[in-house]
Amino acid sequence: MAGQPGHSPTSEAQLRELVATAGRILYQQGLTDYLGHCSARVPGTDRVVIKPKHSKTVRSPGELGPDDMIVIDLDGNLIEGSDAPPSECSIHTEIYRARPDVQAVVHTHQRAATLLGIIGAELLPVLHVPAVLTDGGTMPTWQCPLLVTGPELGRKLAAALGTAGLCHLQGHGIVSVAADIRRAAVTAVALEQLAEANLTILQTGLSPRVITPGELDELRSAVASIDGRWAYYVQLLGEQPAPVF
Amino acid sequence: MAGQPGHSPTSEAQLRELVATAGRILYQQGLTDYLGHCSARVPGTDRVVIKPKHSKTVRSPGELGPDDMIVIDLDGNLIEGSDAPPSECSIHTEIYRARPDVQAVVHTHQRAATLLGIIGAELLPVLHVPAVLTDGGTMPTWQCPLLVTGPELGRKLAAALGTAGLCHLQGHGIVSVAADIRRAAVTAVALEQLAEANLTILQTGLSPRVITPGELDELRSAVASIDGRWAYYVQLLGEQPAPVF
Amino acid sequence: MAGQPGHSPTSEAQLRELVATAGRILYQQGLTDYLGHCSARVPGTDRVVIKPKHSKTVRSPGELGPDDMIVIDLDGNLIEGSDAPPSECSIHTEIYRARPDVQAVVHTHQRAATLLGIIGAELLPVLHVPAVLTDGGTMPTWQCPLLVTGPELGRKLAAALGTAGLCHLQGHGIVSVAADIRRAAVTAVALEQLAEANLTILQTGLSPRVITPGELDELRSAVASIDGRWAYYVQLLGEQPAPVF
Amino acid sequence: MAGQPGHSPTSEAQLRELVATAGRILYQQGLTDYLGHCSARVPGTDRVVIKPKHSKTVRSPGELGPDDMIVIDLDGNLIEGSDAPPSECSIHTEIYRARPDVQAVVHTHQRAATLLGIIGAELLPVLHVPAVLTDGGTMPTWQCPLLVTGPELGRKLAAALGTAGLCHLQGHGIVSVAADIRRAAVTAVALEQLAEANLTILQTGLSPRVITPGELDELRSAVASIDGRWAYYVQLLGEQPAPVF
Repeated sequence: MAGQPGHSPTSEAQLRELVATAGRILYQQGLTDYLGHCSARVPGTDRVVIKPKHSKTVRSPGELGPDDMIVIDLDGNLIEGSDAPPSECSIHTEIYRARPDVQAVVHTHQRAATLLGIIGAELLPVLHVPAVLTDGGTMPTWQCPLLVTGPELGRKLAAALGTAGLCHLQGHGIVSVAADIRRAAVTAVALEQLAEANLTILQTGLSPRVITPGELDELRSAVASIDGRWAYYVQLLGEQPAPVF
Repeated sequence: MAGQPGHSPTSEAQLRELVATAGRILYQQGLTDYLGHCSARVPGTDRVVIKPKHSKTVRSPGELGPDDMIVIDLDGNLIEGSDAPPSECSIHTEIYRARPDVQAVVHTHQRAATLLGIIGAELLPVLHVPAVLTDGGTMPTWQCPLLVTGPELGRKLAAALGTAGLCHLQGHGIVSVAADIRRAAVTAVALEQLAEANLTILQTGLSPRVITPGELDELRSAVASIDGRWAYYVQLLGEQPAPVF
Repeated sequence: MAGQPGHSPTSEAQLRELVATAGRILYQQGLTDYLGHCSARVPGTDRVVIKPKHSKTVRSPGELGPDDMIVIDLDGNLIEGSDAPPSECSIHTEIYRARPDVQAVVHTHQRAATLLGIIGAELLPVLHVPAVLTDGGTMPTWQCPLLVTGPELGRKLAAALGTAGLCHLQGHGIVSVAADIRRAAVTAVALEQLAEANLTILQTGLSPRVITPGELDELRSAVASIDGRWAYYVQLLGEQPAPVF
Repeated sequence: MAGQPGHSPTSEAQLRELVATAGRILYQQGLTDYLGHCSARVPGTDRVVIKPKHSKTVRSPGELGPDDMIVIDLDGNLIEGSDAPPSECSIHTEIYRARPDVQAVVHTHQRAATLLGIIGAELLPVLHVPAVLTDGGTMPTWQCPLLVTGPELGRKLAAALGTAGLCHLQGHGIVSVAADIRRAAVTAVALEQLAEANLTILQTGLSPRVITPGELDELRSAVASIDGRWAYYVQLLGEQPAPVF
């Protein structure tokens, strides 16, 4: 892990690579347009590597690389880089403050998951791999469509997220958090697949067979690690995977 | 703004660039095929820069550049260029006559918004950014599927539009109007996203959480300007953005 | 028209070009895979230019050119070319026998129109341009899912078609017939757009505003000719349009 | 057939080519991402040619060729190659044990068919070609969403499959089995088309016209062989078809 002894001198550079790659993956998978942003906490610090705010010069996440990422502190101050932080950087900073276990935050407006949140429908664990990756479909809802333009709203969002890995920002989008930016991004992709399945099922009016808690326990111990999944999405970008550390 | 003193000598050339680019964006975003057209009023004049009528030689809007645009007057007479004006140019001219505040008109047959108009369903503001860009989903309907082949029908359409920024042409398509061609085009894209969300929600039979008027007021003051959004869509065309003036 | 005096010496070559292009357009527009076929009658003869049967060597219609087309007579005998005629060539020959006004037949398995036929739902004229191109949505259904492997079934299909321009082959696909292969192909594209709209509307459970017969009459006299529409689809193939004669 | 006398010396190499091509086709057709796998039994042996497990180095099936395939025995032991077998290789080995007639197994998580299984809806034979290719829509369901991580679960799956060609793995995906890898793969594609049609029809709430058993019998004798269908999908990969033997 990036936070292990001896790795800290290079970890910020590695995180720039990983955060930019996560942003490109989410874009390539159709989960984002110019909106949304990924970040990672530099282990053991108050520094956060994050995509800058979209603007006339900062546009498609599909074209952004490690050097385009910026660094902010937990008050949202710009520490490295010249582009502005996202106006919603409090999404990231307040989750990092509230959740020491979280090292990465992904925020998207991904279509299916956002719609499921808008209609208040449960994210039923109907597909086995996405069910495991989304922790059995556990996904609270923050019932506020406002832009998260400051720490107060960020704290409310963090409270709604609680100890979960995913949260609906109702009428807005979602957050996916994890101890690893690769996992937070892959989970967002799995969430979209599961949400799309739920929407389609709702449209048929029929009841799905839901995977049971006992089955989920068995599945958790059986599904493969995140490494192959991340490598696959990276390959779709036409590049070598970022070094795993 | 293009209409500011000192900019008028170049403004028509700039508008040709912007109108052609708006047409390419709408085409690239899948909102148009060969049908539909964008226009902009040359500030302080009765001249309108507009895409010509589709024909054997005027085909994909994705391939049209500034020099392909034509100029008409408010009676629909061809002032510059050799290709014919759209047979529905009264959509544009009569809106310009009725609405001095409007400097740009976009007309498309975009799928989701058109379908929502056909079934008479409200464009509910369920997604925060598109809700703001479409003025809270305010969208009257002109209950007439005829081609707007002359000034009389154009005046009826303008009356149905009233003071709004968007209007359904029921069984036909939509218009998006603004003081800026960039805004009119970006709004059409946001409308399609919001209409698609509404259609999907209707298909589930569930009730969405609608963004409240009070929340919309807060959102209006918080969302970013049109500049970054336009720059993003331009980047997708693989070109530099038109100069903003 | 190809059948006009003085043009007959070159018409078969021109029809090969048009039939191959129509097949490429339908493929490019996603209305066909390896199944389906277009044909045109050589004016004043019993000869029919048609795409050959798909096989190990005759595969994607997107790759077939004029020289790949074959010629059959109205008994389905191969007159020119070495590849076999489609096993369903009676779709074409029996319609040509029954309908002297028909010079072109398009047969596809296009998704939305076929599904609408399977559920027996009416093709409501809800979108104005497609409504006109599909003659107000007039579309009888042949309630037979069998392959049209001989003249007897072909005659039954022709009887179900009657004097219409479109017919459902229930559980199978559709035919689109016209005096011009360009019109038959463009109509198939418009049909798919209209059928998709009808399916989506059915999924919402809401009632659409249907274009009235009187409005359709007005629209018929106002919509543009087929030329610009064909030229647009040809442009999407990245080629010059076939010469119009 | 690969199992015919005189062909056995080359059959394993041919099967590597066919299994890799089937995997590329399923990927190109959108039926798989990094998950899912195809296999073929080497005729007259206990050897199975199969795609290896996805990992950091074994990623997109779209990029895997004959040399990437591995060989396992019916106990799942790696016989040739260095990459690990899929963790679910018991899907394949236990079906081969239970079904001497089966020479090829395809396992996917294809969207529409999997969703149809989750809601327990019947795969109605509403489209004639896919109806024949899927044996009239005959498709039992194995009501278990667990990963098939060992022979015991594999045997249960094989029992649920019975003598059918297709089976739902509820909450998971499907299997398609045949005497020929080309047929198993083409059937999976046809299944997806038929399942998508069924889902869309369910969303309209209307009743489809179902192809009758008598009609299916007539259709079975009329539809073309698998050869042209396989050749078409291979062409989409931009390559020559594997030699048919």
